[in-house]
Amino acid sequence: MEKRIIEIAKQAREASRVIATQTTEKKNAVLRAIAVNLKKNSAKLLEENQKDIESAERQNLTKALVDRLLITDSRIDNMIAELESIIRLEDPVGEIENFRTLPNGLRTGKMRVPIGVIGIIYESRPNVTLDTSALCIKSGNGIILKGGSEAYHSNMVLVEIIKDTLKEQGLPEEIVQYIDIKGREAVTHLLKQDQYIDVIIPRGGPHLIRKVVEESTIPVIKHDAGICHIYLDQGYDKEQAIDIIINSKVQRPGVCNALECLLIHQDAAEEFLPILHEELKKNEVEIRGCSLTKEHINVKEATEDDWGKEYLEKVLALKIVESMEVAMDFIAKYSSQHTDGIITTSYANSMRFVREVDSSAVVVNASTRFNDGGQLGFGSEMGISTQKLHVRGPMGLKDLTTSKNVILGEGQIRN
Amino acid sequence: MEKRIIEIAKQAREASRVIATQTTEKKNAVLRAIAVNLKKNSAKLLEENQKDIESAERQNLTKALVDRLLITDSRIDNMIAELESIIRLEDPVGEIENFRTLPNGLRTGKMRVPIGVIGIIYESRPNVTLDTSALCIKSGNGIILKGGSEAYHSNMVLVEIIKDTLKEQGLPEEIVQYIDIKGREAVTHLLKQDQYIDVIIPRGGPHLIRKVVEESTIPVIKHDAGICHIYLDQGYDKEQAIDIIINSKVQRPGVCNALECLLIHQDAAEEFLPILHEELKKNEVEIRGCSLTKEHINVKEATEDDWGKEYLEKVLALKIVESMEVAMDFIAKYSSQHTDGIITTSYANSMRFVREVDSSAVVVNASTRFNDGGQLGFGSEMGISTQKLHVRGPMGLKDLTTSKNVILGEGQIRN
Repeated sequence: MEKRIIEIAKQAREASRVIATQTTEKKNAVLRAIAVNLKKNSAKLLEENQKDIESAERQNLTKALVDRLLITDSRIDNMIAELESIIRLEDPVGEIENFRTLPNGLRTGKMRVPIGVIGIIYESRPNVTLDTSALCIKSGNGIILKGGSEAYHSNMVLVEIIKDTLKEQGLPEEIVQYIDIKGREAVTHLLKQDQYIDVIIPRGGPHLIRKVVEESTIPVIKHDAGICHIYLDQGYDKEQAIDIIINSKVQRPGVCNALECLLIHQDAAEEFLPILHEELKKNEVEIRGCSLTKEHINVKEATEDDWGKEYLEKVLALKIVESMEVAMDFIAKYSSQHTDGIITTSYANSMRFVREVDSSAVVVNASTRFNDGGQLGFGSEMGISTQKLHVRGPMGLKDLTTSKNVILGEGQIRN
Repeated sequence: MEKRIIEIAKQAREASRVIATQTTEKKNAVLRAIAVNLKKNSAKLLEENQKDIESAERQNLTKALVDRLLITDSRIDNMIAELESIIRLEDPVGEIENFRTLPNGLRTGKMRVPIGVIGIIYESRPNVTLDTSALCIKSGNGIILKGGSEAYHSNMVLVEIIKDTLKEQGLPEEIVQYIDIKGREAVTHLLKQDQYIDVIIPRGGPHLIRKVVEESTIPVIKHDAGICHIYLDQGYDKEQAIDIIINSKVQRPGVCNALECLLIHQDAAEEFLPILHEELKKNEVEIRGCSLTKEHINVKEATEDDWGKEYLEKVLALKIVESMEVAMDFIAKYSSQHTDGIITTSYANSMRFVREVDSSAVVVNASTRFNDGGQLGFGSEMGISTQKLHVRGPMGLKDLTTSKNVILGEGQIRN
């Protein structure tokens, strides 16, 4: 098996040199052709998707999971719309930043170039197969996909459509590779191919992420859990506060930028807690409160386990704090540095929170749900990075490039 | 020992939160005070450095290595000049890129912020201790240093000066930490502290780098070997070619951006090789040539081992190629993607080489020795990254920052 994985990685590396130097026009033509072929093969895709759905139902997966797997005609239209939006994105490759002439006459700048080969290990939603492949093609990278077995049949059709299109367009099909070997051992071998793969992106549960971080000799860009906090300051706008907290918690509780823990300044507790309690009840959100909370409202008591927990459902941890400092220390300790926000009327506190809280997004008086590539105007994303190096937050097209220093001389030598 | 390393890393993490929010003025004041204290303690530094020198001589280290360890009065002045140049660099922290207003009125941009805690594992030259600490202080990061045992006494004095200055300035001394536990086991434990350390920078031989890549759960920025190539094209300027090749090879043969392998177009060989041979002889450079080379000049024959080899001394591998494509394939196979150049009079070939060769620096008609932070105007550097993620080539002050998405709202929620 190891030999097969090495072979796949090596082929991707060689093919990546070809896609790296294609013009934007050519790369867009490939994406347009993928859209056409996707439409043409939609009956087949729906048919194969049905197999995944049936198998998921046989295994009694939750309704939410089955729904994430499901492909419908309108979802195919969404995939095509996504391809079109990637076609419209500006191609970052070849852009030279800070191009200048040095005192000795050398002309130099940093040219954006494809990273090379991107590996992605992901679960469920089959549209990820298409989106990430399209982003890699547009940015001139090769991609190695390792999808979850639950989406096996759907992924196979999608990969076939992409590979056939690449061939049609006179490009090596190995630009997009799929590892269809099941099991964790295949992942273990994949993680050692640093000679051929430049970055590994794990998108999945904490066990997958930890396995990748511990075993990979390839640089990793983690797409980790979102343990998001909001701190409600001493001074706040009641209506705004309710809107933001409810939206952050319930608009889509199962995603990484949803609110998990609310910290409330002690001076705000008496007035705000009963109102909040009412609103959360209306929205069927369960509260787990600290012992002080229970002096104001009748809720289940939080245990140490509730701090730093990603519920991904309609449960909210709630803690009363003496000051903004205590809130920021709490966030430094328990947040996953994904998205943390403040609700305040104080200019000074908003500025201090922005400066001192170290998360991929720091939000003032708005919903945590805005930490998203589409919402922030970056376009499609490979995921949301919780890594500090290279890219933090939504990982878009430009983040799929690296740079090289171009140095243009006329015989200059160094003294 | 593991407990001690965890303790050191944890302290650095806590202290890093303090340095992260200091103003540029304050950080510059710290650097200025370090310069003053360095001058004040120079006698002690010279005395302790003498111990390292004596021990190096007892161990029969090469003259070059002993020289790299040596600290003199004028080298102390150089260290102070380096500090002053870091003081003059613009502080990247707090800069917001691409600040804009979204259609829903949210104001957002990417704010540059310190990475957190930087770990660096390095060898010999004690000035690295000072330079890297100063760069981390200026960029608001904590730093954990693991220097080589050969510079132990010198490093201890330098770290003491820095720590005393931090205390004097009312800051936690744990912003700069030194691991004085000897041996590889300490490194092994250090590499697992991903909870507290954000990036590990190994600067050293291939064994150290491989150990770090294989064992680290912390993201790594490699500062790997420089196996640098120049391709001499069919059309070339004779004088420029000689100047560039000699400068790239002999100006400082022991460094990573020195030339190791020259590829010559077959049509250029007959005229150019005898001239080059003469010039290399004058500069005491030994040639290892491919079999075709030996038809033109009388040199030692290269073996497979000579391709992709970092000599770091006055030896040059030489190969005749049929075309630029063959040269670029050779570079793709054997280069360490550090610095590769072309000498040509052809506009088309220069453009193609720049586009297709994937190295941290691609040089046209100039010495490979220009791939250096100081030469390219980036100022002091942590090293030269051979990594594709985050930073490629010289790693300067700005590369010691990451970003966070700042989102400023007035009650916005997501639909």
